[in-house]
Amino acid sequence: MPIDDRRVGDKRPGGRATRVRTDVLRAAAELLEEVGYDQVAVEDVATRADVHKTTVYRRWPTKAELIAAAVTEHSAEAVPIPDTGSLESDLQALAREVAANIGTESGGRRSRSIAAASAISDELAERMYGFWADRLGQSAAVVQRAIDRGELATNADANLIIETLIGPLWVRLLLTGEPITETLADRAAALVAAGAKAGSV
Amino acid sequence: MPIDDRRVGDKRPGGRATRVRTDVLRAAAELLEEVGYDQVAVEDVATRADVHKTTVYRRWPTKAELIAAAVTEHSAEAVPIPDTGSLESDLQALAREVAANIGTESGGRRSRSIAAASAISDELAERMYGFWADRLGQSAAVVQRAIDRGELATNADANLIIETLIGPLWVRLLLTGEPITETLADRAAALVAAGAKAGSV
Repeated sequence: MPIDDRRVGDKRPGGRATRVRTDVLRAAAELLEEVGYDQVAVEDVATRADVHKTTVYRRWPTKAELIAAAVTEHSAEAVPIPDTGSLESDLQALAREVAANIGTESGGRRSRSIAAASAISDELAERMYGFWADRLGQSAAVVQRAIDRGELATNADANLIIETLIGPLWVRLLLTGEPITETLADRAAALVAAGAKAGSV
Repeated sequence: MPIDDRRVGDKRPGGRATRVRTDVLRAAAELLEEVGYDQVAVEDVATRADVHKTTVYRRWPTKAELIAAAVTEHSAEAVPIPDTGSLESDLQALAREVAANIGTESGGRRSRSIAAASAISDELAERMYGFWADRLGQSAAVVQRAIDRGELATNADANLIIETLIGPLWVRLLLTGEPITETLADRAAALVAAGAKAGSV
């Protein structure tokens, strides 16, 4: 009987390595939400994920790396890049996802904690800048598809469009404390889609 | 010779009370910028303003009150509400003021520190929510004048327009770390003005 190579070691997709990664990052995201960045201890993440702390440190040598990885993983799941067929409905879907992600009490607490910690820790800030550069790069697909469909001019500024779309949601979370609702997401998407189509950017 | 009533006591406008207020709030703003919210000590503010600490505590019983007052005072000076005669140029002027205020190294440090501290201190958060409600209320004059001129529909959403205008600037400061430039301010203003005029909000 032939040996199934994929079962040797712990590196195959879907195998132990992947499970450990998923469990650790989920535990980190949960603890971030529960206690805030400052109070997250890597040992507690390891305990919750049921792995040895050296397993965590080997993959994510610092807390900043671990938390940035957890946020990246969570966001990829919670805020996928939409492809609905029109600029406005893509922007609406994206804004609604962001609103659902940061507009709940627990999501708001997690997101504010990360933003606050980034203002204090240069290492976390650098990691989060990398996260945001990736997110904006991925979100630019929404703008590129609108350009390809002829909805936007070829020089449309994808970063500006996405930053302006998510702006009022984050302004409410981090500055004004106003509620972050689906209605807000829809109105921001309508405003930004109309502005972008007017060819101003 | 008649006694000049205005010289009696220290409450007349432009007198000692006003000078003390100005000196204390300026000292608080400077320390906030230099050491960050957590490290600001009310005693140090008093020392720098050359007043007794009880003078500070009498007017601003908590650090959160003092710092919120300092930010309010500073913003009223640094970010006045423009009235240039058109929606787009008003939004441009406002966005440029915000960019100049938070886009420098020292202004950015001060603004990030306040945002970070607000994410941790409920008392500061409540005071800053009040500050932002005032600022948005004042900024709404820009939208109201545009409605009066017939540039915008009567149901234009002033809060959304202002939050969306300043959104990309604050997103860059607090999330992405991208530079906050006058060009960004101008492009955000053009985008939001065009979107608002398209009648989507």
